[in-house]
Amino acid sequence: MAVSATAEKSEAAAGALDRLLAATADEMAKVNALILSRADSHVEMVPQLARYLIEAGGKRLRPMLTVAAALLFDKADGAQVNYAAAVEFMHNATLLHDDVVDDSDMRRGRPAARIVWGNPASVLVGDFLLGQAFLMMVETGKLDALGVLAKAATIIAEGEVFQLSKAGDLTASEADYGEVIRAKTATLFQAAAEVGAIAGGADATERAAMRTYGLELGLAFQIIDDVLDYRGEAGAMGKNTGDDLREGKMTLPVILALAAANPAEREIITASLGKPDASEAALAQVVAIMNRHGALSRSVDQAQAHVDAARAALEGLPAGEMRTILSDIAEFYVSRAY
Amino acid sequence: MAVSATAEKSEAAAGALDRLLAATADEMAKVNALILSRADSHVEMVPQLARYLIEAGGKRLRPMLTVAAALLFDKADGAQVNYAAAVEFMHNATLLHDDVVDDSDMRRGRPAARIVWGNPASVLVGDFLLGQAFLMMVETGKLDALGVLAKAATIIAEGEVFQLSKAGDLTASEADYGEVIRAKTATLFQAAAEVGAIAGGADATERAAMRTYGLELGLAFQIIDDVLDYRGEAGAMGKNTGDDLREGKMTLPVILALAAANPAEREIITASLGKPDASEAALAQVVAIMNRHGALSRSVDQAQAHVDAARAALEGLPAGEMRTILSDIAEFYVSRAY
Repeated sequence: MAVSATAEKSEAAAGALDRLLAATADEMAKVNALILSRADSHVEMVPQLARYLIEAGGKRLRPMLTVAAALLFDKADGAQVNYAAAVEFMHNATLLHDDVVDDSDMRRGRPAARIVWGNPASVLVGDFLLGQAFLMMVETGKLDALGVLAKAATIIAEGEVFQLSKAGDLTASEADYGEVIRAKTATLFQAAAEVGAIAGGADATERAAMRTYGLELGLAFQIIDDVLDYRGEAGAMGKNTGDDLREGKMTLPVILALAAANPAEREIITASLGKPDASEAALAQVVAIMNRHGALSRSVDQAQAHVDAARAALEGLPAGEMRTILSDIAEFYVSRAY
Repeated sequence: MAVSATAEKSEAAAGALDRLLAATADEMAKVNALILSRADSHVEMVPQLARYLIEAGGKRLRPMLTVAAALLFDKADGAQVNYAAAVEFMHNATLLHDDVVDDSDMRRGRPAARIVWGNPASVLVGDFLLGQAFLMMVETGKLDALGVLAKAATIIAEGEVFQLSKAGDLTASEADYGEVIRAKTATLFQAAAEVGAIAGGADATERAAMRTYGLELGLAFQIIDDVLDYRGEAGAMGKNTGDDLREGKMTLPVILALAAANPAEREIITASLGKPDASEAALAQVVAIMNRHGALSRSVDQAQAHVDAARAALEGLPAGEMRTILSDIAEFYVSRAY
């Protein structure tokens, strides 16, 4: 029985996460053990808070990306375990600080750490995790990978500040949005892939290709995340649908909707944008406007273009099961929004 | 005319800061230029906020310590400029986060950055500065110095969390206090001195001696700071007298006072401890109790013991003007409280 190319693609995508999990399982067991041991401290509140966040799970996509990139090149020297744990610590540090910055109540399906332990402890444990991330990098003895992560740390922080300065700014453009997600999300995906490639013994060309793959994957990932904020269910996402609207975040769907809206629609959107107590009914009205102008589907199209670019970047890299998985996983993340 | 040993010592101490400033001036000009250039970003709010804090001055004691340590050994390779700037960035990142953690209104004699730009921007620009600190370290190509600062970053954060967990805890002991100030203050002094020694080409013994010097200097510095919080004037200190009491910080003076207090005195202290709106009159009563039991003077005695240990650590190091300055500057910092 013949199946369409799209159906085939989505079937491959559906299994991609399981295949990635299986292909990185041995290395990720080491990474997870390292993560738990390095979240420890004689100061009780540090591991309590860190583990509360870490054990809530999350997909560990970023460290898996590091491990997968290292294994792709077949000359992996073991440093990927430290790199992957460092990447996850950087990510968790960012989450702790983000939740303070955004006054978020939920994270990974449960109350944010700041709700349980307070803002001060969340800021400080974030700092602790960032310090541990750099320490784990130092231990591998490779300066170039360290430089990649240090640079990423500054770009991520800059991106968050830029996003803050654009919150509720109705003149925010698609270019502004592109800059924000490139800095705050795609930079860590890019760094995760690049340090993995370094651990794997990639040459300069291969390393550049993995950078591109990580960057494009991260851009697609964030756009889809921003689409799901208007479509998702609180339980599945671990945060509340409509949070971005209520926080005044100028994400792609709202930028595209505002650009296409008539004056009445524009008024409806701006009445809820950045209003923490905007009702569910108001949110539904905004989503209806987005759908009327194709703002969500056009956002998904942009994500798909980044996925295509990510897959194209893999072309010159060593063929095999791991490359296929990396290609399919990109498709998988965009498939969440179809 | 014969002068007493104490008077001689305090005269040397009085000029020590000027001599340290002069001896490190050339290198500090490079450090300050690097600090300004690395606080820059295309995201406007980043340099605005960073420079607001950085240009408020502060004494730059920590980077001067790095530079002085490097010059002491006479084989300085230039890396001290990056190290010193990194140390100052780490310090400023900590200040930004501390002010958020402590809800502080004043810093370096003006409104804290968080009052002007808000808590979110203060957290994020702190993260940016921390990232830049590591990046500047990476650029020198020396992993051991990087390891010293990464380790320091984790210990500082742990110490802050420990202090947070002890806030208002009437059972906090002198040992708890020692742990807090060792972690949150002395660790960075120690690291500043150690990375300076590394840049100066110190051998392992000399490096260990500089570590000890930095640690003991830092311990003395923090004890004096905590004494001055009960004695100082808001203008001179850049923060408000009595802040520690109102924030419930279990510093040495309050721990010693509580240990010696009778039940009535204890009640007076606990009535103000951790009470943001404790009056000036209530503060004066607490200070009177401290003086009655010698809590402030005994705190100064402990600081003096650390100064003596810092000076002793210098003994095996290259003799000369710089060593004399480092010895005198330790005396200078404790002399602030006499």
